[in-house]
Amino acid sequence: MVWGSNTGVGKTLVSTGLASSILSSSSSSEPTKFNYIKPVQTGFPSDSDSRFVYRKLSEYFLYRKPRVSLLASNHALKASIPAAKEVLGAEIEDEWLEKSDSGLKDLCWYDERRIQGMDSEVVGSELVCKTIYGWKEAISPHLAVEREGGNLEDSWLLDSLQKCFRVGLVDGGNEGKGVWTIIETAGGVASPGPSGSLQCDLYRPFRLPAILVGDGRLGGISGTISAYESLKLRGYDVVAVIIEDHGLLNEESLMSYLRNRVPVLLLPSVPQDQSNNLMEWFDESQNILFSLKEIMQSSFSERLRRLQDMPKKAGDIFWWPFTQHGLVPEGNVTVIDSRCGENFAVHKVRNQELITQQFDACASWWTQGPDPTLQIELARDMGYAAARFGHVMFPENVYEPALQCAELLLEGVGRGWASRTFFSDNGSTAIEIALKMAFRKFSSDHGILLDFCKGNMVERFIDFRVLALNGSYHGDTLGAMEAQAPSSYTGFLQQPWYGGRGVFLDPPTVFISSRSWNLSLPLVLQSEKLKPEEMTFSSRSELFCGIRDASDLARSPSVQPRVCRRWVYNIDEVIQAAGGMHMVDPLFQRILVKECRNHNIPVIFDEVFTGFWRLGVESAAELLGCLPDIACFGKLMTGGIIPLSATLATDAVFNAFKGDSKLLALLHGHSYSAHAMGCTAAAKAIQWFKDPLTNLNITTEGRLLKELWDLELVNQISAHPVVKRVVTLGTLFALELQAQGSDAGYGSLYANSLLRGLREDGIYMRPLEVSVNGTHYPPVYPEPNQTGTAFPGSVPHISVLDQNRQEPELTF
Amino acid sequence: MVWGSNTGVGKTLVSTGLASSILSSSSSSEPTKFNYIKPVQTGFPSDSDSRFVYRKLSEYFLYRKPRVSLLASNHALKASIPAAKEVLGAEIEDEWLEKSDSGLKDLCWYDERRIQGMDSEVVGSELVCKTIYGWKEAISPHLAVEREGGNLEDSWLLDSLQKCFRVGLVDGGNEGKGVWTIIETAGGVASPGPSGSLQCDLYRPFRLPAILVGDGRLGGISGTISAYESLKLRGYDVVAVIIEDHGLLNEESLMSYLRNRVPVLLLPSVPQDQSNNLMEWFDESQNILFSLKEIMQSSFSERLRRLQDMPKKAGDIFWWPFTQHGLVPEGNVTVIDSRCGENFAVHKVRNQELITQQFDACASWWTQGPDPTLQIELARDMGYAAARFGHVMFPENVYEPALQCAELLLEGVGRGWASRTFFSDNGSTAIEIALKMAFRKFSSDHGILLDFCKGNMVERFIDFRVLALNGSYHGDTLGAMEAQAPSSYTGFLQQPWYGGRGVFLDPPTVFISSRSWNLSLPLVLQSEKLKPEEMTFSSRSELFCGIRDASDLARSPSVQPRVCRRWVYNIDEVIQAAGGMHMVDPLFQRILVKECRNHNIPVIFDEVFTGFWRLGVESAAELLGCLPDIACFGKLMTGGIIPLSATLATDAVFNAFKGDSKLLALLHGHSYSAHAMGCTAAAKAIQWFKDPLTNLNITTEGRLLKELWDLELVNQISAHPVVKRVVTLGTLFALELQAQGSDAGYGSLYANSLLRGLREDGIYMRPLEVSVNGTHYPPVYPEPNQTGTAFPGSVPHISVLDQNRQEPELTF
Repeated sequence: MVWGSNTGVGKTLVSTGLASSILSSSSSSEPTKFNYIKPVQTGFPSDSDSRFVYRKLSEYFLYRKPRVSLLASNHALKASIPAAKEVLGAEIEDEWLEKSDSGLKDLCWYDERRIQGMDSEVVGSELVCKTIYGWKEAISPHLAVEREGGNLEDSWLLDSLQKCFRVGLVDGGNEGKGVWTIIETAGGVASPGPSGSLQCDLYRPFRLPAILVGDGRLGGISGTISAYESLKLRGYDVVAVIIEDHGLLNEESLMSYLRNRVPVLLLPSVPQDQSNNLMEWFDESQNILFSLKEIMQSSFSERLRRLQDMPKKAGDIFWWPFTQHGLVPEGNVTVIDSRCGENFAVHKVRNQELITQQFDACASWWTQGPDPTLQIELARDMGYAAARFGHVMFPENVYEPALQCAELLLEGVGRGWASRTFFSDNGSTAIEIALKMAFRKFSSDHGILLDFCKGNMVERFIDFRVLALNGSYHGDTLGAMEAQAPSSYTGFLQQPWYGGRGVFLDPPTVFISSRSWNLSLPLVLQSEKLKPEEMTFSSRSELFCGIRDASDLARSPSVQPRVCRRWVYNIDEVIQAAGGMHMVDPLFQRILVKECRNHNIPVIFDEVFTGFWRLGVESAAELLGCLPDIACFGKLMTGGIIPLSATLATDAVFNAFKGDSKLLALLHGHSYSAHAMGCTAAAKAIQWFKDPLTNLNITTEGRLLKELWDLELVNQISAHPVVKRVVTLGTLFALELQAQGSDAGYGSLYANSLLRGLREDGIYMRPLEVSVNGTHYPPVYPEPNQTGTAFPGSVPHISVLDQNRQEPELTF
Repeated sequence: MVWGSNTGVGKTLVSTGLASSILSSSSSSEPTKFNYIKPVQTGFPSDSDSRFVYRKLSEYFLYRKPRVSLLASNHALKASIPAAKEVLGAEIEDEWLEKSDSGLKDLCWYDERRIQGMDSEVVGSELVCKTIYGWKEAISPHLAVEREGGNLEDSWLLDSLQKCFRVGLVDGGNEGKGVWTIIETAGGVASPGPSGSLQCDLYRPFRLPAILVGDGRLGGISGTISAYESLKLRGYDVVAVIIEDHGLLNEESLMSYLRNRVPVLLLPSVPQDQSNNLMEWFDESQNILFSLKEIMQSSFSERLRRLQDMPKKAGDIFWWPFTQHGLVPEGNVTVIDSRCGENFAVHKVRNQELITQQFDACASWWTQGPDPTLQIELARDMGYAAARFGHVMFPENVYEPALQCAELLLEGVGRGWASRTFFSDNGSTAIEIALKMAFRKFSSDHGILLDFCKGNMVERFIDFRVLALNGSYHGDTLGAMEAQAPSSYTGFLQQPWYGGRGVFLDPPTVFISSRSWNLSLPLVLQSEKLKPEEMTFSSRSELFCGIRDASDLARSPSVQPRVCRRWVYNIDEVIQAAGGMHMVDPLFQRILVKECRNHNIPVIFDEVFTGFWRLGVESAAELLGCLPDIACFGKLMTGGIIPLSATLATDAVFNAFKGDSKLLALLHGHSYSAHAMGCTAAAKAIQWFKDPLTNLNITTEGRLLKELWDLELVNQISAHPVVKRVVTLGTLFALELQAQGSDAGYGSLYANSLLRGLREDGIYMRPLEVSVNGTHYPPVYPEPNQTGTAFPGSVPHISVLDQNRQEPELTF
């Protein structure tokens, strides 16, 4: 893709020269096809870059390459009505023209020349020039659209371009031909396209290798470097910079600055005389353009070679998390070339090699939020934050991004309860910090701290335990593990130091099956005699309704956890994500929190997965209608771009660490505590999530996510015979397949074929990290006083997370 | 600072207009001083922007503001010899001119006008225009230097500019005056300055608020946005964009794109006619320029207000790591406005408010490496990586930055032993992962894994312990804590679950005192009868010399740790950093590693602090001359810009997790595992560290850091009566002060005054996080079978870390 650092820097000359260099070196035995595509042309048809390339090259071959044969053509596909009139002439009826809905007229205009070389009977090589869209006025495309009509959405333009690109590659007669395609943009890199989007943003989903035609004029060093940086800031790879010689030695500065990054080439001065046919200039430029061609070719081969080698290299040197390397064949490794918003660009080798798009339905472990526009905005902010701050030290210091981020957290997810922000790097460390806070708070509330400070060696006799749910997951560092019930994540094979320092409860769960929400009680509660209306709900809001607090179930003694005589802390989550996408009955959660409050037990909410509208409201606290003392946030907090987590706490928790001695302080920290880039991204993302102007899924009243899942479709799916249960909540869609009989292995296979199918359909998914029964390893019960099964689930679960799409998308 | 998106966009007109708008609204009762500074002028003296401002404004006041008084002056300070000849005229002797060493001549040229307004006797307001450096040819400054001489290093230019800036602010007669200073750059934002550095890089240390004069011409939208992005990519705040109206509606696109980020203003078209005196244009522009002035003023007040409020807000809502909030008065909070390479820009309020530079001698907890140039390069890479990848999911996937980073780690710090890279987020998680690896490796090597897989419940009887050193520190998550000896970081007050699952040894340490390296033996070894040459060393290399392996000390039975009957793992560090900057005798480390090898005990090196030439060689492994099975890296790995860590392991360790079941795999991971931005930064930094072209402190042979500390100075300091010990190694300089008598409290105070002095001298330092005796909290001994004292040090320690400076800098 040929970009210019400004208008009038010679993009079309470079395209033409490249075509001449490439086609000149082709032969009848090794024919070449050269596609030149101009997606957007203004001043059309009196100006037409594709016509220039077509004519100039034909001319050049006639005059300079008498031995070479060439079939050259020029096409114009669509134009605005005023431009179409110019092309098609006066005989076209106005009325007929204006019937076009889009304001764009199909032209199907075509011109062709066949140049017969002396050396060859067969015309092997081919030049195909195309203008896709033309507007009459010689102004910026977005203004031309405004004045002439022909409104063109970005996605349409990309579709047309992709079609041209494919046709150029695969249409008849290309066998054995080397195919080159050059796409020439209009104006400068950040000039607006027809919709007003900047071209560098518009074409980003393709992320084609870039040739930047720089500026050799006075001021051109600056313009060229800035244009280069705008391309880099969109994730483009710039293969070469080429500038015209204006005698100012701009190339020297550019070479020096861009050294080791991108080669800089110098074209001879273009004759100013309008009547000059440029034949001599093309002759003089041949060497440089040949070098450019070589650079492009070797960059392409290098890229391809690297993409091809990646799966093997990855398998050889990576140690992937949660991955049994013995079970990953090389062919299963996904090579990700880039991400644009919610889509991965993935390298595939099937009949041919291609880069294809896959929708990231895992939201990359629920970290992702931004659409392509916010991704670019975050990218610029990341550059800015790195340039302004890099990383600076946090304790006893303050800097803007950290302060802003802390303010936004306390005004947002911490609103109404939290007063302090402790930053760390990931969910697991946020939980470790939360536990330390909770232990201290409890010690302080229950007189233990005072005893300790008096010198009584109380700590030897205290067995602090966490009140938590079976199937919960809070991270993989030892402290976070200890707060989880025994599972395959925590067993001897993983960390022999794990003891499971909790009282783990089996919670009631809720899910949709056969078109309604159903309550599933754990064994311990199954003796309860519940009315049917307490077991089945017509809607999710009924489930969350506070009226249930007064129900028989709520008052049942077996639901009331006996927490009074233990020293425990509660870790709460609405959805047990890694544990199998189980939705805990909100009533149960509320009762637990209330019981803890009654016994002065601090409550921690693990909101690492649930925070920031993941579940439809800003925080799980809002969803449950009760507040924690401490809560942990991460994942989506930075817009899914960089690791950062935060542990929020109330004043009362904070005060348990205050005193006259440093030893009383929370002596926990990480090197990059509150790093400026993470805080910058989070400050941006948090504001973006809650603003209906930037997050189109938020209601304008501002505090709720629109329902993203079509209720009827969800109900249909829930009634499907292969579906065991469905959970939808906010951006989450979880689906459990019905295992056939007790053969979970079969169920597993069943899901795998679904997953493969989804990947073929462009949806990237992974099954949840749950263990499959049938292993020969014994379950691990570290302590006799704990309940719980070793393996949280017996069939793989699938979840589709969809933050931004209005239309849920699910393909069987 | 006024920047242009290109040459010829009207920077000087904007400066002049601003001056007229500001000075017009001043009065004799509220006089204003307006400083206009043009640091670099080419085409001088025939072109002079400062003369243009001076003349145009005088003219404007004469014609248009007859009631206002003004004292206007224009100064030219220095010029190249050809330019100086033009200014000073033919009477100046050639010979005399060429005496100038730098090729730059002091001009001391001065012109002044006094405009007496009708309304005022007193001339209150003042316009001071200055050209600092002039060259004769009207070309880019770096080319003018090449042709005319007058080589000007960036630091000289910045010094001159700062002087002008200060003089403009504080020279006589400013009392009660509002002072404005505008600095106008030359050409576009990325046009080279005299040294060839791009101006946007050159002026970065000041990070002055930017006015960007955009381009209203065809192609100007692109050029303006790109220039804006180049400024953002250097960490500048752009206060406003202003463009001249060329009838193309560029302002609309710019307003739409820059919405919510920066206001865009439109100036009327400038008359093309050269003879036009622009008086009418200035009249027409008054409203817009008044708005610009208002925007600048409110942006300035807003910034100032925010900086002033920050310490209180920070104290109110942050929860700083390792900080007793009760002991941090508001006045102690450091407000960091930005970082440039090794320096913080810090906001201070003393006699007046100012932003001042402080050298970050903590290297922000040893994370920092890059100089200003690499910081900007990393910033661009961060933008690129965020735009290209954001974050993508890691397991079973591969993408370029992760692969490249893993390759570089294995070729570098892992060379000769490691074959796998496991990524995580910080040193603490890297250690947790290393422990899990080591446990499994040990289980596999000693038949425990096989027993377990057969279903024997062996794990209930295994008490895995870590062989580690007293005073070591590996992070604050529970697993990492368990591998540390009891200390104030690990006690009941911090984490009641801590048990100290290790065998903790007291190591011999080494340090410089009284001009020589000395060995200090722990109590358990003090019965050894050592020869003097085994206790004192003339140089560090003697200490590290392998010959010592054959010494009596090495063969002493009490040095040989009895590790054979325990199941333990060794965590090793050369320097006990957080524990008090103690340097462990390398001989002891080697013996420990050898013993572990003999008993098939896996060895972990904690290289989070020591890796990447922090200690003068690429890794501690290289320093000690022995290899680990597992090693952890972090901190400096990303060039100190973003959190990322890596746990490297041998094939044998990796293979202990391979099998046909996922349960055998290492089921550990974090949401942002191997995040693209971190890997991109690390790949860049790792290459940069080892390349003598980019890391000037590396020897050209490439694998050693030059000695950064002047030996004689170090010896002098070590012989100073107040100094107890000094340790220098690589970039590390650690100094322990002699506590007077046993009063460690006094010692603490003593160090504090040193620290305060250093901060006054522009050196930012924190004492190490060691505890001070005299607290009323009892020490914590969790297990009777462990040795070790509760508090690793009794006096504060000071360390100066200096990665890049050739000249060590230490001020008492």
